[in-house]
Amino acid sequence: MRIHFEEQLKRLHVELIKMGSLCEEAISLSAKSLETPGKYFYDKVKELEIAIDQQENEIESICMRLLLQQQPVARDLRNISSALKMISDMERIGDQAVDITEIAPFISQSQPKSKVHLADMARIVVSMVTDSIEAFVKKDLTLAQHVMKTDDEVDALFDRVKEEITDLIAQKDTDGVLPVDLLMAAKYFERIGDHAVNIAEWVEYSITGEHKK
Amino acid sequence: MRIHFEEQLKRLHVELIKMGSLCEEAISLSAKSLETPGKYFYDKVKELEIAIDQQENEIESICMRLLLQQQPVARDLRNISSALKMISDMERIGDQAVDITEIAPFISQSQPKSKVHLADMARIVVSMVTDSIEAFVKKDLTLAQHVMKTDDEVDALFDRVKEEITDLIAQKDTDGVLPVDLLMAAKYFERIGDHAVNIAEWVEYSITGEHKK
Repeated sequence: MRIHFEEQLKRLHVELIKMGSLCEEAISLSAKSLETPGKYFYDKVKELEIAIDQQENEIESICMRLLLQQQPVARDLRNISSALKMISDMERIGDQAVDITEIAPFISQSQPKSKVHLADMARIVVSMVTDSIEAFVKKDLTLAQHVMKTDDEVDALFDRVKEEITDLIAQKDTDGVLPVDLLMAAKYFERIGDHAVNIAEWVEYSITGEHKK
Repeated sequence: MRIHFEEQLKRLHVELIKMGSLCEEAISLSAKSLETPGKYFYDKVKELEIAIDQQENEIESICMRLLLQQQPVARDLRNISSALKMISDMERIGDQAVDITEIAPFISQSQPKSKVHLADMARIVVSMVTDSIEAFVKKDLTLAQHVMKTDDEVDALFDRVKEEITDLIAQKDTDGVLPVDLLMAAKYFERIGDHAVNIAEWVEYSITGEHKK
């Protein structure tokens, strides 16, 4: 029974890593969509989002089977309920990557300085997602806490973009669409950072039994 | 065993309704915070958000106990896994209500015409949350589908607010903070609508076994 449990748990880890990679790719491509006019990146990210949704269903089935067949307790139970929570956050990350590519057409045709910071945000949140899932698989509390701290950088970049957009509006040489789209894109990246923090908090819970929220 | 299961399920429903009411109150108060300067509504909504988080933990425990002790199958299993998903969405609604009150101070001191539409958005999403939870408890597929359709109204209002903000910026008589805050508030209400749709989709899944996503 225990050996079977460990095997299923390993399978769960493999699938979570796979889902994490899909999210990372979706975020990276959504960032590229802000640079490149055309529908290519939208189509790509949309495909990835569908794969992410399927992966969520797959992992949910594994978790439910583990819960029902193995009736785990204590740390094992926390482990599985954390995985169930984490995949909800990853699924949302997929949605938000699509949201970014949807507003990309206008942004991709202009060169406001905020774009540099959007690219920075994307780079950081990709690493947060990778790290939070690695922290789960390796039961690495320090790495999970590192993800939570890193979110401060994302929030600082978001505040910066907001200020730049406020300035852009105040300069009165914009027609209004660009600042709205830029703000939305920044907001989506900031939300992805929040989701990575949620994942890291579930990792912490699965290890310590304490949930920060 | 079955009677005990039904009792626990009833308890689950009661707690879900309670969590739903907390969410509705949080949303309504967050809308009021846009009208009234001062910290009163922020404090109130923050308190509600804490209560919502506690309620999430409570319901999660009930669901886990049901899964482990009763090992439900088919529709019963779907019912409980849906409840687990729904509470994640409700928890996020609490967070977003707080987010709205956080950006309220500036909005509450001005009278852009978008505020009327923000109030409309709030009113509609409150009813969507109420309806989606009632649909779960009463296993009412039609009501769940009504919630999904109602989201079109929220999206239309969000688009309208975006246009108004774009106009506000183009009129060039604004300093930039107000449009940014208005857009954020509208985005939060729109997200709450999405969460209500997610809840309704889980209700549909729990009844039909088919998940739209």
